Amino acid sequence: MDVEVPCYAVIFSSLRTEGERGYGATAQRMEELAKGMPGYLGIESARGADGFGITVSYWRDEASIAAWRRHGEHVLAQERGKREWYAHYEIRVAKVERSYSGPEGRLNTDETIKLP
Amino acid sequence: MDVEVPCYAVIFSSLRTEGERGYGATAQRMEELAKGMPGYLGIESARGADGFGITVSYWRDEASIAAWRRHGEHVLAQERGKREWYAHYEIRVAKVERSYSGPEGRLNTDETIKLP
Repeated sequence: MDVEVPCYAVIFSSLRTEGERGYGATAQRMEELAKGMPGYLGIESARGADGFGITVSYWRDEASIAAWRRHGEHVLAQERGKREWYAHYEIRVAKVERSYSGPEGRLNTDETIKLP
Repeated sequence: MDVEVPCYAVIFSSLRTEGERGYGATAQRMEELAKGMPGYLGIESARGADGFGITVSYWRDEASIAAWRRHGEHVLAQERGKREWYAHYEIRVAKVERSYSGPEGRLNTDETIKLP
């Protein structure tokens, strides 16, 4: 998934409570809704068998993040998340300054960064 | 995991190739090594059964990231990663501007951001 830089990343790491409790359907719905928001650039998500997961969503600017945070259906999901789905979570908002990918080593910026 | 802000995040998302190929032991070793590097603040990682994973490491500044990228044993692991372990990966370097956690809603910054 390519994202243009600079952009903003919302890094959401969370530990799920036990039991499904309708989490999967809402998570899918939120991803669909996010994709329709202005300034949405992309999303990536992984969760291991231990219940710990990381979702990173990418946005054009801070205003896009703020609008998504305040979206009515998303607000309800956030409340349910705090009440039912997450034993713990951390959210970090970060400005993405450069981006590169591999193994082919294609750079997405004009910097000559040695691929790690 | 609390991280002081501002700091830098290296967001590494990757799709593993099939087969273990010594990946787990090296991944564990790299995490240990990273923890001993100057400027290291923390690491979080999740990988799903589909082989897609996200690891986010946090660093005090860009210099810390550069030093870790050039660490000899890490350089060898990066090369092996490109050759053997990753079908694809993306790396994004981002400046973390704020951080908060929940469900208790404790803010790590002095901003009055509505959670989440």
